[in-house]
Amino acid sequence: MSSVGHVIPQSMHFAQPLPLRCGARLRDYTLVYETYGTLNAKRSNAVLVCHALNASHHVAGTYAGREPGWWDNLVGPGKPLDTNRFFVIGVNNPGSCFGSTGPMQNNPDTGTPYGADFPVVTVEDWVDAQARLLDALGIAQLAAAIGGSLGGMQALSWSLRYPARLRHCIAVATAPNLSAQNIAFNEVARRAIVTDPEFHGGHFYAHGTLPRRGLRVARMIGHITYLSDDAMEAKFGRELTNGVLGYSTRAVEFEIESYLRHQGDKFSEYFDANTYLLITRALDYFDPAREFGGDLTAAFAAAVCRFQIISFTTDWRFAPARSREIVKALVDHKRDVSYAEIAAPHGHDAFLLDDARYHGLLRAYFDNVAKEFATSPAPGRPKAGSIPSGDRSSDSASEGSIA
Amino acid sequence: MSSVGHVIPQSMHFAQPLPLRCGARLRDYTLVYETYGTLNAKRSNAVLVCHALNASHHVAGTYAGREPGWWDNLVGPGKPLDTNRFFVIGVNNPGSCFGSTGPMQNNPDTGTPYGADFPVVTVEDWVDAQARLLDALGIAQLAAAIGGSLGGMQALSWSLRYPARLRHCIAVATAPNLSAQNIAFNEVARRAIVTDPEFHGGHFYAHGTLPRRGLRVARMIGHITYLSDDAMEAKFGRELTNGVLGYSTRAVEFEIESYLRHQGDKFSEYFDANTYLLITRALDYFDPAREFGGDLTAAFAAAVCRFQIISFTTDWRFAPARSREIVKALVDHKRDVSYAEIAAPHGHDAFLLDDARYHGLLRAYFDNVAKEFATSPAPGRPKAGSIPSGDRSSDSASEGSIA
Repeated sequence: MSSVGHVIPQSMHFAQPLPLRCGARLRDYTLVYETYGTLNAKRSNAVLVCHALNASHHVAGTYAGREPGWWDNLVGPGKPLDTNRFFVIGVNNPGSCFGSTGPMQNNPDTGTPYGADFPVVTVEDWVDAQARLLDALGIAQLAAAIGGSLGGMQALSWSLRYPARLRHCIAVATAPNLSAQNIAFNEVARRAIVTDPEFHGGHFYAHGTLPRRGLRVARMIGHITYLSDDAMEAKFGRELTNGVLGYSTRAVEFEIESYLRHQGDKFSEYFDANTYLLITRALDYFDPAREFGGDLTAAFAAAVCRFQIISFTTDWRFAPARSREIVKALVDHKRDVSYAEIAAPHGHDAFLLDDARYHGLLRAYFDNVAKEFATSPAPGRPKAGSIPSGDRSSDSASEGSIA
Repeated sequence: MSSVGHVIPQSMHFAQPLPLRCGARLRDYTLVYETYGTLNAKRSNAVLVCHALNASHHVAGTYAGREPGWWDNLVGPGKPLDTNRFFVIGVNNPGSCFGSTGPMQNNPDTGTPYGADFPVVTVEDWVDAQARLLDALGIAQLAAAIGGSLGGMQALSWSLRYPARLRHCIAVATAPNLSAQNIAFNEVARRAIVTDPEFHGGHFYAHGTLPRRGLRVARMIGHITYLSDDAMEAKFGRELTNGVLGYSTRAVEFEIESYLRHQGDKFSEYFDANTYLLITRALDYFDPAREFGGDLTAAFAAAVCRFQIISFTTDWRFAPARSREIVKALVDHKRDVSYAEIAAPHGHDAFLLDDARYHGLLRAYFDNVAKEFATSPAPGRPKAGSIPSGDRSSDSASEGSIA
């Protein structure tokens, strides 16, 4: 197993407006993406990797000044999602802050950064934007859409919104909607950001400042929910930073405090506050059962692909019971669904980690997916990091439009 | 069952300094307290009720402009802790913000409010201060010390620090120390407060302002940990405030958001920010096993009283497993301990609620405690709300000193 190596992010501009669920539209927009592996002759081996809250299009490999991709342990030559066989696509979602059109970029209507005026985006809007990118790449149907957490919600949404455009949906550590407790944690994080005086009503860019205090607190809250109680106990326990109690309400006393502050500090320097608001709201709003009166089974009537659903025993953010709700809805329709509950100690973060049983399941699943198409790409087909050269229109699906 | 009715808070000044674990001392200080019921002739029916984070000496009854005491459902005539039989004492701990000496009061050394200069206080310091109050009230030995959450820690500390001075320790919904996750939540709350620009390094009184933003966020975080996931789901679920989605990152969309914001707003107007820091630190620091190399059994060698330990199945803040650690340490010493795990849906907050099984257990326990002393107080003994008139020095115990 090796890395996909040096990768080059690409970008594509879309001139046709993207209508959004909130009623607004993105007048025109850019999506930044990366691809790994080679699209085969039949264009049938594409896998879309959907990112969660603070991740991006940079799924695997390395490039100057950046850490390896966020799912580099999963995606690469010989890895469970094997780039020798699959053409893997990572897309930064609109509203995010890693290159695709988002609050930090200029609003074409005003010539100044969108800031708080960036329209509210939903999981469904992201999926629509991703579908348009696939149109442009000449990919009519995905072999699979995969994601963890909020990424898993996008994979699920693909199965409902574009049922003919994917053969497999792999949703890890996710839920059919947020619980009241999930929303509560998001809301506290948002309040911390919005009430930071440096937030300036979401137009802090013009003030040359950042709402770092709010972002730090938001990230600290997030981190607590990503780790299991046991994992935190095993890693930090009650260890003191200086070995002795300092009797201070403000200095760091315990290792866990040092860890959280460090995570908060790091995050506040690279993550956009408006993006944090938008993405936590997209999480809150995701609820495919809503338009079916809360009936998740009714919501999943549209899905026709095959599913792999994976949860982790110690994930208290999106507990296994939430994944089982999805499985039940699919089984009610006699859909082909494989479900696994992995006994992992790491909590929600487990979906990002290299657990042997977890990765073993994904490897086995993708091995089966790969049997559906020829394993040897035709010579002369596009390579990693390049845009496929085929005739886009002849292969594109009916949804969306080509930029 | 009825209320103890109208009550009058009392206060007592202590001129002798209180040495603190942090190495500092309170030069002189005042404790505010309330009493309910009548101290019997043998002065053997006193029960000390220890308060948790945001509560006070106002345990039961009513007085102008205040809600009923925080444990009014438990304490009163005919109630499980029956004031017809017991003399019940509630004390506001030093460092708190409800009348006892704390950060809002003037530092006698400077003549200005202590603010951030109030020394760090611990559970042990509070227990020492409570013991001095009992000295002054002429109570050599408590029938029982009782508390929930942080109050339970004080009850446990009583059994270790003054083993000869109490016959029963009743510790509800508590833990022998905070877990890394518990500390993490406290730390995020503290960071929200300390980084609020209105905190002014803890000297906001002089600026005529309050760090409301930080307090709101702190309280919202706290509330999430007080409720069980299920209770929050049952009470709020995904209910929308306005019935339809508003697609806003800042407006209230979900009922749970409205609830949390309301709780935060209310709290930020009445609770002192420096007190929040001090009390969460007292929680962090409580760890009787620390000086025994982490051996909780060794720590409990000092305890000789009888124990009732109660936990709640859905309490994820101080889960039943934490109470079982205490029970194990006591059983290792063959101490008389009764343990109950109550199947209640309300999470940590259950210790404040009137659950029939929970209150039934407490009632039965206190019925047994009452059998140890004559049920009829001698005529002419002190009544509720008045300071006992007996000779203080002759009855006082050896620990501490009388103000």
